[in-house]
Amino acid sequence: MSTSPITGGPILARTGGGSPRREAPPVQEKAAVLRGLENLCRERGLDQLALRIGELAELVRWDMGEVEIALRSLPRSERAVHRGAHHLLDQGGKRLRPLCVALAARTGSGFGAEARELGVAVELVHCATLLHDDVVDDGDQRRGAPAARTIYGNAASIFAGDWLLIHALQRVRQTGIPGALDRLLTIIDEMIEAESIQLEGRGHLDLSADRYFAIVRGKTAALFRWAMYAGARAGGADEEQAERLAAYGDHLGMAFQLVDDLLDYGGDPAETGKTLFADLREGKTTYPLIMAREKDPALDGLVRAVLDASPETEASAHAALAEAIDAAGGIDACRTLAADHAARAIASLDGLADGPAKHALVTVAQATVHRER
Amino acid sequence: MSTSPITGGPILARTGGGSPRREAPPVQEKAAVLRGLENLCRERGLDQLALRIGELAELVRWDMGEVEIALRSLPRSERAVHRGAHHLLDQGGKRLRPLCVALAARTGSGFGAEARELGVAVELVHCATLLHDDVVDDGDQRRGAPAARTIYGNAASIFAGDWLLIHALQRVRQTGIPGALDRLLTIIDEMIEAESIQLEGRGHLDLSADRYFAIVRGKTAALFRWAMYAGARAGGADEEQAERLAAYGDHLGMAFQLVDDLLDYGGDPAETGKTLFADLREGKTTYPLIMAREKDPALDGLVRAVLDASPETEASAHAALAEAIDAAGGIDACRTLAADHAARAIASLDGLADGPAKHALVTVAQATVHRER
Repeated sequence: MSTSPITGGPILARTGGGSPRREAPPVQEKAAVLRGLENLCRERGLDQLALRIGELAELVRWDMGEVEIALRSLPRSERAVHRGAHHLLDQGGKRLRPLCVALAARTGSGFGAEARELGVAVELVHCATLLHDDVVDDGDQRRGAPAARTIYGNAASIFAGDWLLIHALQRVRQTGIPGALDRLLTIIDEMIEAESIQLEGRGHLDLSADRYFAIVRGKTAALFRWAMYAGARAGGADEEQAERLAAYGDHLGMAFQLVDDLLDYGGDPAETGKTLFADLREGKTTYPLIMAREKDPALDGLVRAVLDASPETEASAHAALAEAIDAAGGIDACRTLAADHAARAIASLDGLADGPAKHALVTVAQATVHRER
Repeated sequence: MSTSPITGGPILARTGGGSPRREAPPVQEKAAVLRGLENLCRERGLDQLALRIGELAELVRWDMGEVEIALRSLPRSERAVHRGAHHLLDQGGKRLRPLCVALAARTGSGFGAEARELGVAVELVHCATLLHDDVVDDGDQRRGAPAARTIYGNAASIFAGDWLLIHALQRVRQTGIPGALDRLLTIIDEMIEAESIQLEGRGHLDLSADRYFAIVRGKTAALFRWAMYAGARAGGADEEQAERLAAYGDHLGMAFQLVDDLLDYGGDPAETGKTLFADLREGKTTYPLIMAREKDPALDGLVRAVLDASPETEASAHAALAEAIDAAGGIDACRTLAADHAARAIASLDGLADGPAKHALVTVAQATVHRER
């Protein structure tokens, strides 16, 4: 039997339908992100959704704990590359991609060791892109903490990203799940292509909606698609069923990114861990602005005012632009499209046997539209 | 049959013992590097070696042309990521790693489509590391031309490296050669580990020989090892024979890097495409200096003088340090160790059936010690 290069433990053993083979990992009662979302929905009077998020958190508590333990069990050393990678991993994060793997696996035979490895891998790929992105964007903050590159340097951040990427590929390879590695390589290629398009469009306010969608599909949706596909295959799904779940991932990823765009214009930095208008300052035009510019060409002046703002004028420039984007319908358009993708994600589940995992996937899609971090 | 994602052509068809299935590619008569080396050996009165390098160049002319065509057939676009990658690929380079793949394959059934794909892949991995290294080292020159990052930016260089890496892995995956992908992932992990050790030791003159060897083994020798292993398997070698050839690659890589170290202290920048003392200025202590410092602790002052030199004092500071390293035996020690590794590379071929490929591998190892670029 193969053993994991990371933990030394067996990685191909299946635990079956989610039944633990050893004590549940010592993780918090429910994933922090899900608890936050549950509370938020309750505050908004969305009691039914809050209840279902609570059930979802229960359902995947073991799975997510397993993923978390594995993530934190990656080799550590005093070297900047390892410390940089762990600095990011230890910040937590939403772990939404591993959640997709877990739920996709649970629509079938359940969350076993293979699904755990795939869940770890998808988070590692995601973190690898963040480590490279922070260097590319000169990003100072990530997940509400200083970016790894600000502590350990750009070089360590680049190599840490390379390291996590290779580790992820090794793990996927070792599961032997049919199609998982080939598809992951293809999807990473798509992610780089999307980064490349984004890089080219940087600083151009007049990014077309088509190019924006190409970027989001590649940068965000593709990896969600893979998480669902790979998780489904780990749970024994056939190709057709896995493709159905992959389509869910695609739409969920789109919805997720559109909400991210909204939060950049109106989120609470204490919640999101990101500074407001960060995309804009990095030269990235996102959906609310694209839609608003179509209605109100005068917006460009307000954008320039934000980019040129001094510390004294920043707050008023931000407020003026956010208000103008909202007035021109940019926020509504973005929220509507996010809701549409969430609905299409849910529609992708048609034909899937009813059960707790399917219900949980519906809940995730619905909740994504409401998230504030 | 699988088709190549790059050329659209079949990649799994074997051409058999190197016999071309279509017209020979329109490449220069002999690889430029080999021709240069042939002339150099002739100038030095090494007529026998010059003759054998000429034969070697003939032997792999087709193979190397195939690799070159495939490298230049990678997708191109106006985007900075693609342009950055092609900027480096189009500079040429020694293509020594693909040469290893070709010769290893030719010790068996010959250079076919699989060997070509592996040869392309090994060069892509190498180029990926160069693109990342140039960002990490703030490198301005590469292969005698401005580094890609100076033209297309650090961001494009990072993503271009990511892109080439993923392309390489896809190609290796698609050959289906047993063990090739797993070993390549392991070796890239070793390469990153070596980068990480180097990063940590940066700026420390007192790098131990052990750490130096760990760095070189990971950064350079590991990929040569893989090239030989994978090429051997593509040529139908069994595990034992492939391991023998892998050991050759290991020693050849060590010899190659040691000569690189020598050239940093005394090469001709017009030949090497690198500025002199570049390693030192990047904070990298290499073998000649490690050996010389053991004999002459006063060297540290001369090193500082090089690092602190103004444009006016640079030439004399360089000359003084180069002379002191030579006087302390650093150059001889490095050349001797390189020759030792070359000899051990050749010894690794014992037990291999005689033939043109084996003779060519002997020639490559001998010539490596003499190269001046």
